[in-house]
Amino acid sequence: MTYRAPIDDMLLALNHGAGLKAALAAGHYGDYDGDMTAAILEEAGKFATDVLAPLNRVGDTHGIKLEAGKVTTAPGWPDAYRRWTEAGWNAVSGSEAWGGQGLPLAINAACTEIWSASNVAFGLCPLLTASAIEALEAHGSDELKRIYLAKLISGAWTGTMQLTEPQAGSDVGALRSRAERAGDGSYRLTGTKIFITYGEHDMTDNIVHFVLARLPDAPAGTKGISLFLVPKFLVNADGSLGARNDIFASSVEHKLGMHASPTCTMTMGDKGGAIGYLIGEENRGMTCMFTMMNQARLGVGLEGVGVADRAYQQALAFSHERRQGKAVGHKDGGPDPIFAHPDIRRMLMQMRALTAAARTICYATAVAIDVSHRAPDAGVRAAAAARAALLTPIAKAFSTDVGNEVSALGVQVHGGMGFIEETGAAQYIRDARITTIYEGTNGIQSIDLVTRKLAAQGGAAVFALLDELAKTVAEVEQSNDPAFGTTAAKLTEALGALDRASRWLLERLASAPGDALAGTTPYLRLFSVTVGGGLLAREALAARGAGHDRRYALLARFFAENIAVQAGGLERSVTEGAAAVTDAEAVLVA
Amino acid sequence: MTYRAPIDDMLLALNHGAGLKAALAAGHYGDYDGDMTAAILEEAGKFATDVLAPLNRVGDTHGIKLEAGKVTTAPGWPDAYRRWTEAGWNAVSGSEAWGGQGLPLAINAACTEIWSASNVAFGLCPLLTASAIEALEAHGSDELKRIYLAKLISGAWTGTMQLTEPQAGSDVGALRSRAERAGDGSYRLTGTKIFITYGEHDMTDNIVHFVLARLPDAPAGTKGISLFLVPKFLVNADGSLGARNDIFASSVEHKLGMHASPTCTMTMGDKGGAIGYLIGEENRGMTCMFTMMNQARLGVGLEGVGVADRAYQQALAFSHERRQGKAVGHKDGGPDPIFAHPDIRRMLMQMRALTAAARTICYATAVAIDVSHRAPDAGVRAAAAARAALLTPIAKAFSTDVGNEVSALGVQVHGGMGFIEETGAAQYIRDARITTIYEGTNGIQSIDLVTRKLAAQGGAAVFALLDELAKTVAEVEQSNDPAFGTTAAKLTEALGALDRASRWLLERLASAPGDALAGTTPYLRLFSVTVGGGLLAREALAARGAGHDRRYALLARFFAENIAVQAGGLERSVTEGAAAVTDAEAVLVA
Repeated sequence: MTYRAPIDDMLLALNHGAGLKAALAAGHYGDYDGDMTAAILEEAGKFATDVLAPLNRVGDTHGIKLEAGKVTTAPGWPDAYRRWTEAGWNAVSGSEAWGGQGLPLAINAACTEIWSASNVAFGLCPLLTASAIEALEAHGSDELKRIYLAKLISGAWTGTMQLTEPQAGSDVGALRSRAERAGDGSYRLTGTKIFITYGEHDMTDNIVHFVLARLPDAPAGTKGISLFLVPKFLVNADGSLGARNDIFASSVEHKLGMHASPTCTMTMGDKGGAIGYLIGEENRGMTCMFTMMNQARLGVGLEGVGVADRAYQQALAFSHERRQGKAVGHKDGGPDPIFAHPDIRRMLMQMRALTAAARTICYATAVAIDVSHRAPDAGVRAAAAARAALLTPIAKAFSTDVGNEVSALGVQVHGGMGFIEETGAAQYIRDARITTIYEGTNGIQSIDLVTRKLAAQGGAAVFALLDELAKTVAEVEQSNDPAFGTTAAKLTEALGALDRASRWLLERLASAPGDALAGTTPYLRLFSVTVGGGLLAREALAARGAGHDRRYALLARFFAENIAVQAGGLERSVTEGAAAVTDAEAVLVA
Repeated sequence: MTYRAPIDDMLLALNHGAGLKAALAAGHYGDYDGDMTAAILEEAGKFATDVLAPLNRVGDTHGIKLEAGKVTTAPGWPDAYRRWTEAGWNAVSGSEAWGGQGLPLAINAACTEIWSASNVAFGLCPLLTASAIEALEAHGSDELKRIYLAKLISGAWTGTMQLTEPQAGSDVGALRSRAERAGDGSYRLTGTKIFITYGEHDMTDNIVHFVLARLPDAPAGTKGISLFLVPKFLVNADGSLGARNDIFASSVEHKLGMHASPTCTMTMGDKGGAIGYLIGEENRGMTCMFTMMNQARLGVGLEGVGVADRAYQQALAFSHERRQGKAVGHKDGGPDPIFAHPDIRRMLMQMRALTAAARTICYATAVAIDVSHRAPDAGVRAAAAARAALLTPIAKAFSTDVGNEVSALGVQVHGGMGFIEETGAAQYIRDARITTIYEGTNGIQSIDLVTRKLAAQGGAAVFALLDELAKTVAEVEQSNDPAFGTTAAKLTEALGALDRASRWLLERLASAPGDALAGTTPYLRLFSVTVGGGLLAREALAARGAGHDRRYALLARFFAENIAVQAGGLERSVTEGAAAVTDAEAVLVA
């Protein structure tokens, strides 16, 4: 079956759960008035259904080929990419100064979910380009911007981010690629990068690589890393393409999923060194990287949301088609659709509720990033920046965990058919599996959440969010709407658990950091289910106010009663489970 | 890296967690005295490491080929299978009367874990043969036993179980394959079966198919199903092979995992009908199937344990090899092994603890099955049969969930390398994915647990088990061993949660069965983490008594404080989360 963007759900999440409408009303969005939101999502959904979704399985089965340094993508992919750029989808939130549409990141975030749902391996390419754009725009020279920015924003050229080397994965500071000053202001790069997404392909006539490397006199570690722009083809003064640069794909990986996305080993320097141009200052490459990390991590989180939603849609459709057994109380007639069985419904509700919560968390992160850039008031911008920083690791890690959990449930709903590749459900498991790893593993997200985001200003950003959510919970309680069931009570408990766990961690970060680090993963989950539950309740209140049916209240209720209810156990894993982790060396023997 | 059977862990689990030693001491095991247990596991481990493990990835990458009705398995597989039968591994728990070694099922269960860990797609073949043996031995005529049983027990011939048809998966009663009486006591079968594991292969010169079909005058549904033995080659009176029977593999599936195991569509009747012989009575085929289901489900549970342990071993080894970043407090020198990072340790502990709990639950199921057959006392046999029936759905569903969870964590520990197929970690995810589906989906296991096993005799089997576990918890408390941390308190809470959830379900099964059915999956998990926590504590007490180091206490502690601690949330999903499932129709709209 194909994919249809769930526009109603997305708009509710964006406008109410994520707070876009309130931010617009408060004037935090500058000249964007919100009128175009629905129309853009509708159009994006149409493009995804018509162009991208049909190529999803084609890409998975064909994969890509590397021959003589050239990568051939799957049939139809270059054409789809051309249509994508022509329709302007690459430029949604790009600067108007460079040909972009200047729309909010929140709109682009919803679009990113759509691209990921319809064809995650395709959507990954512009995600990397977006990171490159961000780095260039924030830190590049005017000259580099003039040559490259419009091309990247339109998507005429794509971007890559080249950090990883065999010995330098999560530990970026261990990278060894070298950059020598050429004397003319440019640099010559040598070295090998691995796991470079879309490092080589046939969809555009140039690729702009953003490469981290080390100057000969650089200090050790992350303080000695510089960022360089290294084009596949040099660009002449008139904008035409010049000589082929000395950066080549030397091999591609054979991966569990994302088959259509070429993951390349890139070699620089076989012909004397790749010509590169410094972005920002020498030895300040990590600063440039950090600038763009929020958006890249959010983008990966949206991949998780997209894959989850696709898996849910397919499982839901299957549950209505497939007939097996009779529902309780049905005595006569043929078998019922498996949708009639409570355990199948539980799986579908689990899928839908987790996906909806992850979606809203991602959108809320995007709104916070937008406000941190767009709001006229500096105080509002600063608070939004803190909120964005806090939510980013949640958006990335929780959503990608959800992508994995939901796609696994999707296979389960399909039964034996789910294990057969032709069914398509298994691809979502395979594709989703990388999302918990790249752009900072989910473990690293959890460490970031605790040691940087929670720790900042004594937990101020966390407690501000908890206060907001408590107000939402109070509104649920005051609504006296039986459709909410015990939602308010369950969320109140979750908020208490998150508050206590946060305070415990803040204390331990100072007194016994090893204890704090032992619990970062359950803390991130605790945070996610609490915030997710609160935001779904907020959406349900808004939907109720707008006279909608009870379904969003029921969804919030399911989440609160069946997912947020884990909060107490997670709190105790954080606050009472550390010793068994810190003492683990005695147990973890071969 | 290769696989090494964790003999110490397995023996502790078997003898103490699963209660083999106590059952032996009580005389429940007849003439088996337990002296050979360790030696057999050592030998099995050696065979697995030397012969089966090296073929695991070969099988995954080569897969199988079907040409002109013949299946070719991966290079080395037929030879490995020959060595397997020659070494007697197929016959471990087979009847001595038919050439088997007559060893307890518990010993074979431990071996099954070993085969599954080293090469799960290989081990699946004898698992199916074992089911066939069980059906034939329990219900076959003396003539059929004489011709087929010794060959199946030695493994000279393999068996298949043919239930599934396109419209009949979980709903076995919907099958349509036909059997006509031939007039000579035999039958002629026509129809199509799908998803038939090892339905055709080149490892033996004959295959004995066990096929469910319907007689022309059979009643509808499960009461009109009969079981037939349908050999690939007919067998002459002297035991030599005769004519090729009319049952052929017409296609094989392209699957997410288990690539080396041929999953066949089998067609009967293209040449007039396959000759079949009735097993048991006409229209009583489901009874025959139920006889063997316990063992088959336990076997699949052990696949989950095996894959999980393999994933754990590989991740643990990688965590010591891979160096990234510095541990907290390490300022100088190069990067540390990632094993030094608390979040990595948490993942490894999660893997190890879940695997150990699932292992012990599976072994405890095997011991109960053994005692239900072997104990001289009828009352002991009956109690053991009830225990085996209760634990079987837990063993199947929890262990296979664990297989999936642990193999996913294994990839996560590997970071980006985990997503690359050559690393091998991804194969475990792919292979494990079917185990939650076949031999009754885990949803069906949870329904069986609640509606049959819990419901039997007012929950007697459940409450008897809870009483036993409460004694173990009391012993932990009395030990005053600080290595246990808060294990006793956490398990006491879990036992309370399971007790309350059980009573709630018993009441609802009578008053509102839809509410009970909405919570079967969280109930199964609640049951699993409670029993798993209790059995790991029992093992730790035994290890402590034997003067071992603290590591098993720490493992039990981790499980209690970080996994069993979910019990409260799970209880509430069962007892307070049903409404959002039963009302789900309003939410689950396209």
